[in-house]
Amino acid sequence: MTIVTVLGFTAATLTSLSFFPQAIKVIKTRDTKSISLIMYSMFTLGVFLWLLYGFFSNSMPVLIANIVTLIPATVVLILKIKEGNKN
Amino acid sequence: MTIVTVLGFTAATLTSLSFFPQAIKVIKTRDTKSISLIMYSMFTLGVFLWLLYGFFSNSMPVLIANIVTLIPATVVLILKIKEGNKN
Repeated sequence: MTIVTVLGFTAATLTSLSFFPQAIKVIKTRDTKSISLIMYSMFTLGVFLWLLYGFFSNSMPVLIANIVTLIPATVVLILKIKEGNKN
Repeated sequence: MTIVTVLGFTAATLTSLSFFPQAIKVIKTRDTKSISLIMYSMFTLGVFLWLLYGFFSNSMPVLIANIVTLIPATVVLILKIKEGNKN
């Protein structure tokens, strides 16, 4: 495994897992006021399309990374729609 | 250009540009309370590593997509550090 591949896996792990702390914070606080609905709508749709891209181009890393990211991103999107600009 | 490639470009455009509405919202409102510092620290570092990965693996799309994403992600991170949990 080359240093460049390690760089790619580290980057994928960080960007995929980074949405879990945000989902946990929103679940705990129910505060979504400063979160952008437009961002999470665009981002969640984009991640879903990346997932399809990974599936149709037989790229397991892209498929798995985006399945992982889709979960917390969808949680934040749903809570943002539900909680709106309360708090 | 195949439908799968179009899917990939659309996904990349959505996920890269999605951070701009969040950066604009934070710049306007200075409210970062419900935004996770851990998320943006992990995400911004991850995007930077993706940028390096794109550079060293000569992948222009990965390099450009992550330069684009790094700008708003860094803005949100800096304002989150500056504004903390005010509002």
